[in-house]
Amino acid sequence: MESEAALTGGLESVRIDGHAAGVLAPLERGLHYGDGLFETIACLDGRPRFLERHLERLAHGCERLGIGFPGHETLEREILAVAGEATRSVVKVLLTRGAARARGYALVGSERPTRVTLRYRWDREDPALARDGVRVRIATLRLGENPHLAGLKHLNRLEQVEARREWSDAGITEALMFSSSDRLVSGVMSNVFLVENSRLVTPRLDRCGVAGIMRAAVLRAARQLGIGAAEAALGAADLARAHEIFLTSTLIGVRPVREVAGRALAPGPVTRALQQALAALLAGASDG
Amino acid sequence: MESEAALTGGLESVRIDGHAAGVLAPLERGLHYGDGLFETIACLDGRPRFLERHLERLAHGCERLGIGFPGHETLEREILAVAGEATRSVVKVLLTRGAARARGYALVGSERPTRVTLRYRWDREDPALARDGVRVRIATLRLGENPHLAGLKHLNRLEQVEARREWSDAGITEALMFSSSDRLVSGVMSNVFLVENSRLVTPRLDRCGVAGIMRAAVLRAARQLGIGAAEAALGAADLARAHEIFLTSTLIGVRPVREVAGRALAPGPVTRALQQALAALLAGASDG
Repeated sequence: MESEAALTGGLESVRIDGHAAGVLAPLERGLHYGDGLFETIACLDGRPRFLERHLERLAHGCERLGIGFPGHETLEREILAVAGEATRSVVKVLLTRGAARARGYALVGSERPTRVTLRYRWDREDPALARDGVRVRIATLRLGENPHLAGLKHLNRLEQVEARREWSDAGITEALMFSSSDRLVSGVMSNVFLVENSRLVTPRLDRCGVAGIMRAAVLRAARQLGIGAAEAALGAADLARAHEIFLTSTLIGVRPVREVAGRALAPGPVTRALQQALAALLAGASDG
Repeated sequence: MESEAALTGGLESVRIDGHAAGVLAPLERGLHYGDGLFETIACLDGRPRFLERHLERLAHGCERLGIGFPGHETLEREILAVAGEATRSVVKVLLTRGAARARGYALVGSERPTRVTLRYRWDREDPALARDGVRVRIATLRLGENPHLAGLKHLNRLEQVEARREWSDAGITEALMFSSSDRLVSGVMSNVFLVENSRLVTPRLDRCGVAGIMRAAVLRAARQLGIGAAEAALGAADLARAHEIFLTSTLIGVRPVREVAGRALAPGPVTRALQQALAALLAGASDG
């Protein structure tokens, strides 16, 4: 499996159901329907950051979708095995409902989940991104709303693919997305926070969007710092009013936005306080 | 590839990029994101029904998503090759954006589409289904609305999987789905038509849903028969008012609904006229 062809796109290692020589079934429901979940885990010195939180989210997603969760131990062992081989890496875990037992959407009941564990190279980033912030656009594409799937990191990601196709300017690192009912939701690959009058607010994810691990860590850190923080239904007016905007993900941590759709912003005190509060957590591999 | 393990779920044959021994790349974007399209083609006496229409829809979907269409000839050759080996079969073609060239949603530009061609057993159905009609429920899950993806038969099908998980009663063959803004859209695996005062109406698919090959064939047949037919924004009231309801797909043709969420219906004259008009088309392999 570790042929030269497989090791493109920064991919360094892959295991399917724990085996380096594993193959994907042509009836894989993850392929046919996007019937599964994934996690993207930042690993430093061979240690996966927020591992317990990632596994908890995966277990929760499995429960929501009725996918048999393979258990913390199995997944942890596989993630640690691939993460352990590198100093800096991103480990992506796909957990699908497995190969179809019949044609069509219906389940037979004997489906066995498929685990795909991939390790990618994770290059060190330009420190200017965290210091000075990034430039962001507004996506034209709007996210469909489905409360049943909201919050889950599932494999139906064509909206994100299409939103990412909207720009090629390398100076723009992310796009903010609204939903079909004009709600601000998130970035294409990150969550978003707004600061107004020193209070922190992030879109409620009850209709769409992914409930990010770093998003939750920021909400916890804000509480500890005594910064007012809330999840709310937000719109374009909230975005326009925000004094500070930042993006979060397990890979970027807390990243200030210095320009959104042409409007200039400066990384502000709340963003800085949260960056500082989370720095120790992000440098190590504790579970916050 | 034609191992015993692969030949479950009614699968009789599979080719990946034209090769029986082909394998799926672990970086396949179809798996990671549902970044691709599919067609389900009914084949009789080795001949794929509506082949040109399926290929046209695939080409149109590729254009919308910016996926390089491999060309009619390549796809036609592969479909005919697998279809030719069986008297009755369903050939499913998945066409994805191919293996990722980098981690994340962004495209590098060198992606090469993946073709997966699968042939499934297609058992003869009980003629009572077409004659007497089927029992249908209303799905609890509502479809998210995304005009950018509306009409496409793309690989993001988790909503359909979840809607199909809502019932296990074998006497119910389909569920009608509404969208997040209360519009009637389709069945989980079929399109839907309503008849009121001898006029035919089917949901407009500008926000979600799949623009079915058989749906289009029914609209053409209605015009030829002088039956008034329209695509419109429909709601629960339209469904409640309908004198006749039928489902369509390339596999089931025109199928009367004899019960929807407890309300009894009888297959009516418009349904019968369309069944009759399409019978010749469905028995043969002409392209209608």
